[in-house]
Amino acid sequence: MKKIQLIALWLMAAMVFHANAQQALYGGGAFVSPEIHVDYTVTFRVLAPSANEVKLTGDWMPAEGWVPGSVIMEKDEKGLWSYTTAVLEPELYGYAFIIDGVRTNDPNNVFVSRDIATNTNIFLLEGEQTDLYKVNDVEHGSVTRRWYKSPGLEMTRRICIYTPPGYENTKRSYPVLYLLHGAGGDEEAWNELGRASQIMDNLIAQGRVEPMIVVMPNGNVSQQAAPGEGSRGYYKPQFMEPGTMDGSFEASFMDIVNFVEDDYRVKAKKTHRAVAGLSMGGFHALHISRYYPNTFDYVGLFSAAMLPNQNTSSLVYQDVDGTLRTQMDNGYELYWIGVGKADFLANNIKLYTKKLDGLGMPYTYRESEGGHIWKNWRVYLSEFTPLLFK
Amino acid sequence: MKKIQLIALWLMAAMVFHANAQQALYGGGAFVSPEIHVDYTVTFRVLAPSANEVKLTGDWMPAEGWVPGSVIMEKDEKGLWSYTTAVLEPELYGYAFIIDGVRTNDPNNVFVSRDIATNTNIFLLEGEQTDLYKVNDVEHGSVTRRWYKSPGLEMTRRICIYTPPGYENTKRSYPVLYLLHGAGGDEEAWNELGRASQIMDNLIAQGRVEPMIVVMPNGNVSQQAAPGEGSRGYYKPQFMEPGTMDGSFEASFMDIVNFVEDDYRVKAKKTHRAVAGLSMGGFHALHISRYYPNTFDYVGLFSAAMLPNQNTSSLVYQDVDGTLRTQMDNGYELYWIGVGKADFLANNIKLYTKKLDGLGMPYTYRESEGGHIWKNWRVYLSEFTPLLFK
Repeated sequence: MKKIQLIALWLMAAMVFHANAQQALYGGGAFVSPEIHVDYTVTFRVLAPSANEVKLTGDWMPAEGWVPGSVIMEKDEKGLWSYTTAVLEPELYGYAFIIDGVRTNDPNNVFVSRDIATNTNIFLLEGEQTDLYKVNDVEHGSVTRRWYKSPGLEMTRRICIYTPPGYENTKRSYPVLYLLHGAGGDEEAWNELGRASQIMDNLIAQGRVEPMIVVMPNGNVSQQAAPGEGSRGYYKPQFMEPGTMDGSFEASFMDIVNFVEDDYRVKAKKTHRAVAGLSMGGFHALHISRYYPNTFDYVGLFSAAMLPNQNTSSLVYQDVDGTLRTQMDNGYELYWIGVGKADFLANNIKLYTKKLDGLGMPYTYRESEGGHIWKNWRVYLSEFTPLLFK
Repeated sequence: MKKIQLIALWLMAAMVFHANAQQALYGGGAFVSPEIHVDYTVTFRVLAPSANEVKLTGDWMPAEGWVPGSVIMEKDEKGLWSYTTAVLEPELYGYAFIIDGVRTNDPNNVFVSRDIATNTNIFLLEGEQTDLYKVNDVEHGSVTRRWYKSPGLEMTRRICIYTPPGYENTKRSYPVLYLLHGAGGDEEAWNELGRASQIMDNLIAQGRVEPMIVVMPNGNVSQQAAPGEGSRGYYKPQFMEPGTMDGSFEASFMDIVNFVEDDYRVKAKKTHRAVAGLSMGGFHALHISRYYPNTFDYVGLFSAAMLPNQNTSSLVYQDVDGTLRTQMDNGYELYWIGVGKADFLANNIKLYTKKLDGLGMPYTYRESEGGHIWKNWRVYLSEFTPLLFK
């Protein structure tokens, strides 16, 4: 037994040594970064003794044009660079270091979100709104990545589906929210950047939201799946995939609805269907809801690109006013439009509300601070979903 | 209509500009990295004009002690550093840059795998074995992240479950493989680093593997969920969580089996149950299979830590020889042990096979090249699963 004990100890020691060796190599240090202080100042640290300049860029900093702002960090005698922010508002923030001109992730923070072709480190400051983005001690729904056949796109495609707590253990049927991503996004975006499953879990636990299924498809019709998750393998994601706004996503959208209504216990009626999206996904939601003008009782346009694509002859974009009128005449419960004051689409969206005014088509208008950013879309999701299926 | 056309064009232009501005800021360039050439040499590139030294480290390089090797890259007049490898064998590789001593991910490659507290860039060279790790044009199973109640651990815990293609559309019942991760891993490890869902999809499509459910629990009893996925929020993951080898995972394992057998269409019999794991997960599989000595017909120990923890009085680790004998007397179909020649646990595992020899307990022994690495565990999974449930 003595021998076995010794071997067990050696095994543990070897494993721990292995991990420490790796950690040392990989630049992670004994320090913490980011360190969130009780007053919600935040200290960032990175060990870079040879660097001449290390900057911190974060999405709480005022943007310089389209580019997020940055600050120069301070170096100590050991080559540890650090910077402490002013007091920050509760939010889910993104940041990166720029070491001698090269943008890098924080070696001490393993949590990143992918947006198009960039991984950005994240951290969360808790607060009334941002607590919705946390995994709290509440009942949790399930999130499934699966594949469905799209006859319209002649493709098997990946889709992300949230089922609410209890779905697996009841015979109950649920309403469905179809939740669409923006340009550069995919079926992962609403979960990864939008915290959709956490928001749903928390709002359902608070009794503010009807338990519902949330269906997050991939709106890029040339894509089978999110980058790296399809047969195209690993490649550099781009902002706009071919064909994303040519009408074919909208024209094939019933493939998704049919798949969901065949495969899940859903209430397959207009009163139990919602469609919403952000930016390009708002564009999709707008056109889907009027192209199938008696299908959705709830429509959400978050910072939506509003206007039909003129470079396509797709039937989807014909007779916009006529189909909007039909949609209005058929009746709906909610047509919700949200946009940030600083959004580059804000004027465009105001033009669209004037068109709706002209048609006499009722809508709810929500103007927030800020621009074309995930911060707003997380807020819109948490304001929109409590209005559904009541 | 003219006006609307102009606005639409402006919108597109603004969005594309936005993306390019971001991309420029974030160091992504017009070049490709990694660039995989037809002869399977690979070129890596990173733009770092101010850097004095940029190294490339990759897991195909001979290790220097516990530390992966590295090479110095070459700088051109524009500050673009590059390095082209010799011809590489097909494999799923990991790599990073070390820019003036700071380990960073490749700004041009968004694909990373997390291992403990480190994100490492990955790329895949296709080949007979590694094609199993790709998403191919075959039928795909579903991967669900969900939560189960563990009365034994007094916790609601996150679990990752693969259901084979067709699960949702048949009434058929399936056998189950319980697949356990190593120290520093969690319920995400076998999918993220082990490519379990791709391997299963591909082997099932080839008819080499019986369609089965693969259950990937979290073996760290102090953890609710993978780092960042539980109520503990974001923190720096560590190699060994408290209590991971103190017997409580094994003692509460039936919570997982009961959950799966209650909630999924499974064949709830010994002949249709397998348990396998890597390293610490192999340790867990060993002790689970003899502690419940008439429950699993198939056992897989991949580079397993073999020996009972002597610092615990857990019942799980009492009477090892006696329970192994009982397990043998009860009968089983397969007791599969795989290890790399260079694994630091190889001698330890040989000692264990001698113990089995002494008991007269049959097993299959598979020795591969290499050490305690994911390359081997992906191979073992693809060799072990075709032997199950025949």
